[in-house]
Amino acid sequence: MEKINISQKFNLFQEHWSPKIVGELNDSYVKLAKLKGEFVWHHHENEDELFLVVKGNLLIKFREREVWLAAGEFLIIPKGVEHLPIAEEEVQVMLLEPKSTVNTGNVQNDRTVGDQWV
Amino acid sequence: MEKINISQKFNLFQEHWSPKIVGELNDSYVKLAKLKGEFVWHHHENEDELFLVVKGNLLIKFREREVWLAAGEFLIIPKGVEHLPIAEEEVQVMLLEPKSTVNTGNVQNDRTVGDQWV
Repeated sequence: MEKINISQKFNLFQEHWSPKIVGELNDSYVKLAKLKGEFVWHHHENEDELFLVVKGNLLIKFREREVWLAAGEFLIIPKGVEHLPIAEEEVQVMLLEPKSTVNTGNVQNDRTVGDQWV
Repeated sequence: MEKINISQKFNLFQEHWSPKIVGELNDSYVKLAKLKGEFVWHHHENEDELFLVVKGNLLIKFREREVWLAAGEFLIIPKGVEHLPIAEEEVQVMLLEPKSTVNTGNVQNDRTVGDQWV
């Protein structure tokens, strides 16, 4: 049971679109990710997912709308909802999602990464 | 599916030790709480609980040690672990915990509050 300093954890990695696990509780992981550029359209079949922006401005596109998130704002994306995160400039986010969650959801491609702690 | 601005939500209530629900995902709630003074020793029988400090400095006492949390730091308290949060000055925290979680855990007293959205 050790406290986590979010800013210090972000200093430990540079890769984009490669979420790092920083905590686990109940059936979920807390992850930190650096995002830059455009990701891929995907959805998570069984998992709701929380995006909390720590730094920067994140655009999340949906099929019928889009949402901009600034630092200190979060959005919960319900299971089954297709989304496309886009970061024009680098964004730091904290994610909360079930341990079963794959970053690219229903899509398996070269953006898919496995579980990794930092 | 609406984004939540954490700072704006904190402006909507003043009570201490009365967590407000601001989101739900999977089997969990995201809550915001203002803390000031000393709470009560308690544990949660079946729920791990995450404390993320948004503003201020939070002391969490355990039977054998204590942890100080500053803004941008979080701690996950595993189920069954007795803890006592203390805020010398007002602290703003974001909590993540299963929907079944009662704020005073195994203790039922005048500090116990029910689910309330803000």
